[in-house]
Amino acid sequence: MRTSIATVCISGTLEQKMLACAKAGFDGIEIFEQDLTVSAMSPEEVKALADRLGLTLDLFQPFRDFEGVDAATLAANLARAEAKFKLMGRLGIDTILLCSNVGTATINDDALFAAQIRELGLLAAAYGVKIAYEALAWGTFVNTYLHSWRLVELVDLPNVGLCLDSFHILSRGDDPAGIETIDAEKIFFVQLADAPVLSMDILSWSRHYRVFPGEGGFELDTFMGHLVRSGYDGIVSLEIFNDVFRQSNVERTAVDGMRSLIWLQDLTCTLLGDGAQGHPLGIRALPEAQRPDGFDYAEIRTEDPEAVAGMLAQLGFTFRGQHRRKPVTLWSAGAARIIINTQRSRGITAEVSGFGIQIPDAALATERASALQAPAVPRHHTPDEQPLHGIAAPDDTEVFFGTSAAQPPWAVEFGHPHTTETGLITGIDHINLAQPWQAFDESVLFYTSTLNLAARPGTEVPSPMGLVRSQVLRTDDGAVRLALNIVPHGLENTTDRALRYPEHIALHTDDIFALARRAASAGMEFLAVPKNYYEDLAARFGLDAPTLAQLAELNLLYDRDEHGEFLHFYTETVGTMFFEVVQRRGGYDGYGAPNAPVRLAAQFERNRAMQY
Amino acid sequence: MRTSIATVCISGTLEQKMLACAKAGFDGIEIFEQDLTVSAMSPEEVKALADRLGLTLDLFQPFRDFEGVDAATLAANLARAEAKFKLMGRLGIDTILLCSNVGTATINDDALFAAQIRELGLLAAAYGVKIAYEALAWGTFVNTYLHSWRLVELVDLPNVGLCLDSFHILSRGDDPAGIETIDAEKIFFVQLADAPVLSMDILSWSRHYRVFPGEGGFELDTFMGHLVRSGYDGIVSLEIFNDVFRQSNVERTAVDGMRSLIWLQDLTCTLLGDGAQGHPLGIRALPEAQRPDGFDYAEIRTEDPEAVAGMLAQLGFTFRGQHRRKPVTLWSAGAARIIINTQRSRGITAEVSGFGIQIPDAALATERASALQAPAVPRHHTPDEQPLHGIAAPDDTEVFFGTSAAQPPWAVEFGHPHTTETGLITGIDHINLAQPWQAFDESVLFYTSTLNLAARPGTEVPSPMGLVRSQVLRTDDGAVRLALNIVPHGLENTTDRALRYPEHIALHTDDIFALARRAASAGMEFLAVPKNYYEDLAARFGLDAPTLAQLAELNLLYDRDEHGEFLHFYTETVGTMFFEVVQRRGGYDGYGAPNAPVRLAAQFERNRAMQY
Repeated sequence: MRTSIATVCISGTLEQKMLACAKAGFDGIEIFEQDLTVSAMSPEEVKALADRLGLTLDLFQPFRDFEGVDAATLAANLARAEAKFKLMGRLGIDTILLCSNVGTATINDDALFAAQIRELGLLAAAYGVKIAYEALAWGTFVNTYLHSWRLVELVDLPNVGLCLDSFHILSRGDDPAGIETIDAEKIFFVQLADAPVLSMDILSWSRHYRVFPGEGGFELDTFMGHLVRSGYDGIVSLEIFNDVFRQSNVERTAVDGMRSLIWLQDLTCTLLGDGAQGHPLGIRALPEAQRPDGFDYAEIRTEDPEAVAGMLAQLGFTFRGQHRRKPVTLWSAGAARIIINTQRSRGITAEVSGFGIQIPDAALATERASALQAPAVPRHHTPDEQPLHGIAAPDDTEVFFGTSAAQPPWAVEFGHPHTTETGLITGIDHINLAQPWQAFDESVLFYTSTLNLAARPGTEVPSPMGLVRSQVLRTDDGAVRLALNIVPHGLENTTDRALRYPEHIALHTDDIFALARRAASAGMEFLAVPKNYYEDLAARFGLDAPTLAQLAELNLLYDRDEHGEFLHFYTETVGTMFFEVVQRRGGYDGYGAPNAPVRLAAQFERNRAMQY
Repeated sequence: MRTSIATVCISGTLEQKMLACAKAGFDGIEIFEQDLTVSAMSPEEVKALADRLGLTLDLFQPFRDFEGVDAATLAANLARAEAKFKLMGRLGIDTILLCSNVGTATINDDALFAAQIRELGLLAAAYGVKIAYEALAWGTFVNTYLHSWRLVELVDLPNVGLCLDSFHILSRGDDPAGIETIDAEKIFFVQLADAPVLSMDILSWSRHYRVFPGEGGFELDTFMGHLVRSGYDGIVSLEIFNDVFRQSNVERTAVDGMRSLIWLQDLTCTLLGDGAQGHPLGIRALPEAQRPDGFDYAEIRTEDPEAVAGMLAQLGFTFRGQHRRKPVTLWSAGAARIIINTQRSRGITAEVSGFGIQIPDAALATERASALQAPAVPRHHTPDEQPLHGIAAPDDTEVFFGTSAAQPPWAVEFGHPHTTETGLITGIDHINLAQPWQAFDESVLFYTSTLNLAARPGTEVPSPMGLVRSQVLRTDDGAVRLALNIVPHGLENTTDRALRYPEHIALHTDDIFALARRAASAGMEFLAVPKNYYEDLAARFGLDAPTLAQLAELNLLYDRDEHGEFLHFYTETVGTMFFEVVQRRGGYDGYGAPNAPVRLAAQFERNRAMQY
């Protein structure tokens, strides 16, 4: 599939945008006019740079507010268009995007629209320009793609066709199935955008909240399926207006966009089954997606392992050995394996630096991640060591693919082939990772596409330093669960200890009372839960006094829903990480979200106290 | 008027919130239940702290999802309520907020609602608790305040009344005039919130975008007028859910909230005229608002004045002298006065540090600003110097009130009593100030209330580093115009030179071509405007070739609307400031917003170039 992206999607100068798009692997770009207008590069330089980079210049856009006007306005509009056709000649672009009129249209008459667009088409033909007409969802008179298609049919010129934009179709709730009724030869251009499910006016939604495919709520694989079946064989481009993308790193955002198109093609192939084979659009499947079977390990980086080692021991972990070659130690409890790494740890008190997942075929998962442009994490291995397949997530977390096995083959490098023993801790329940606000959408797509996780509906948790947006990504069976939290704006680089946002590893147990008691007697420091919380618990759940007393004594938190119960506690924070221990009873499948504000407030107060 | 604020409005721990509210001058607070639940302070400590701070605890809130349920749920709800009534006794709070059911109501029957609320009321009475019933705008069955009032009448208990919330009434477009038909004795509590005019679902709007009165689009003075006429004499409280306020400095946000209530009382007094006198609600007017007559001066802080002085000379400014006592120099051109200040300038290449405005009675303006809790800027003056009345804006800009006069009386301190001469520059057109994203709403209210400026609809300008939100505040006649720009998230504290957002002083001329020529021949460095811009101008406005050539030669920008024309140019940036020169022709009253992206892109490219 030939891929393109509108320059308005990403930040920086036109030159920076072009370099980033080429580097990310796009075949071409759409020149968003304003990016050219404000650029010091001449049209000839832009053309030459595109040639050098191997980028095609696919579309000049937008041309606005043309049709449905009086004769004087039409004349002015044609003059304006002619200047742009000349400019396109210098750029070597042969297609212009004509948006349906949203501002100056005064006459609602299909015949007039068609006649005026036809006049534009004839003028364009003289310059070798094709017109791709697009119905904006908020067009004054023309706002559905089937209406724009009727007009294109009325115009009946070889150089006047359609531009289809998934946002303008799906935001209105229009059925994209009608795409299959359109003559594919007359679809001149296709733009894709996803968007989160929001209830607001379509214009604001479109201008600020669009995201790359896979980062929102639209069914873009279905959309693509209709496109494939229409017979379309042209360019599929991204046109995303997003306030965050516009201020994020240009190279990363371009890769994020490219990843979304690669992922979407794979999804569409799955949807179509064999129907995708040999089709002119040329969509490509990825190496097969596999379901992760569980966490292989979680890794903590620290310059001084004593504090973390002490906590692991208090929680009931057993030291399993030092790696044969690296300054890395292995601890285990049940199926939970924790690696403490002191490499590259200068100045790091403790942080969650990565994790491994078990997957049926690690090499295949790596191949798929690589095809999704996940950056590889370099790891040397000697001939007698297991090869490590690692990728770096947008939040710098290092993720490694390990083979599904009760006994991971790499464990022998720590001198102990068998790491599993029965005990109170049974495994890793979930890992909670802090995301910088710029990388949230990118992270969701990265983790879901490379690890084959599904995104659950997000939530927001109040904290003393602002609302924390939280998003769970997981396998259906819960074997792998990640919780991504967006750190409130402005706090991500803070040097204020009280404001730094910690990450955590949640361990699972089948007897949290016994585990908490043992940890307490081993000297474990729990995050202190306020007494008010237990009084509120009593009012909300009608728990009996002895149970409440037991919970309060051990600083345990409690939640309940129609499926079951959830009990959990938090340890004190070391550096920017802490542990949680959870017990799930019955079918409880959540994460104790109602208790998260208690945790965040207690950590905030604790950190304030430690500052003095 | 007795003022209160819900603890959910502001950031921090409950203790921090209480300290900040007391310091800002609120009479009391509403305890948002979760703030207590997550707090380490016991209810008794909260009560004692409130007593020490002189804060009344006015409301316990919210109690949710009570009425319209089956018998079993009702029993559970009553048990839940009784626990809260006991808690309220320990806090010494006598009123609880009951929100109309949004979650568990299954039976739509006013008689049942009233009977169940009556049962709650009887239980509450046993604990000395009053119930303030509030219709949430998205309540399942009860979502208008007149419906909630009908139910309160049906309940017919002395301890069951209403809570009125401006957001829940105005967000639906309901007419608040009906408040006057309610028995004022039965209005137990009033909450105020403003909100920007947004088109989105009411729940999201309410939970994330509420702002303090005066920072949004609701007519809250009208709302207050109805309240006054109803005979209400109770507490008026702020209940604002705002994502930014929740992560901003707690003390500043509390003052921002207090300022909004002071300002709103004044506005309501103006609306009601004499009707506000002697009313039981006790709203108070501020010292009279006056219209500023113009800019007294603009001030630039710099550790090395040579670069700025050179630019001023190139623009045609005359050096007027050094201050008799301070390391401060005065420059003038027409009615434009620029002060260069080297005090407290270490490390500051150049910045716009403040400005003066001319106002009929500076002492009165200062008194009004002080009543609005504007922090005073300390300035010593010797007996033979003019006293200076200064306030510090949320963005740290220092604003001084000067007497309206062609010759400011302070000019003699620079040795030159007459600063005005005829020349190409006629005065200061506007000043553009960068706002940190946390302070934007606060800044709008601060400047509009203390300087008596009106906020125009905001706009957004694309730049290579993100969308820049821009908001003009001005007098009707344009004598004083401020443009506030929000710096994109994350860039406000950047050390990356290319990303720092500059401020500017815009000077007005009646002959920009002559001025630009003279400045160019004096060696002025203009911000270079790309050639592409002029080609686009030609297409958009049909300007003739000689005019375009002249514009391009002088790096002038051009805009036109139905009222007139606008020509302007920008100087190079020094430190974080630059100058703009503008000429307005005909009735053009804007700021060349379509050209702002050109400026921002050129500055971005220029700064990148200077990094190497």
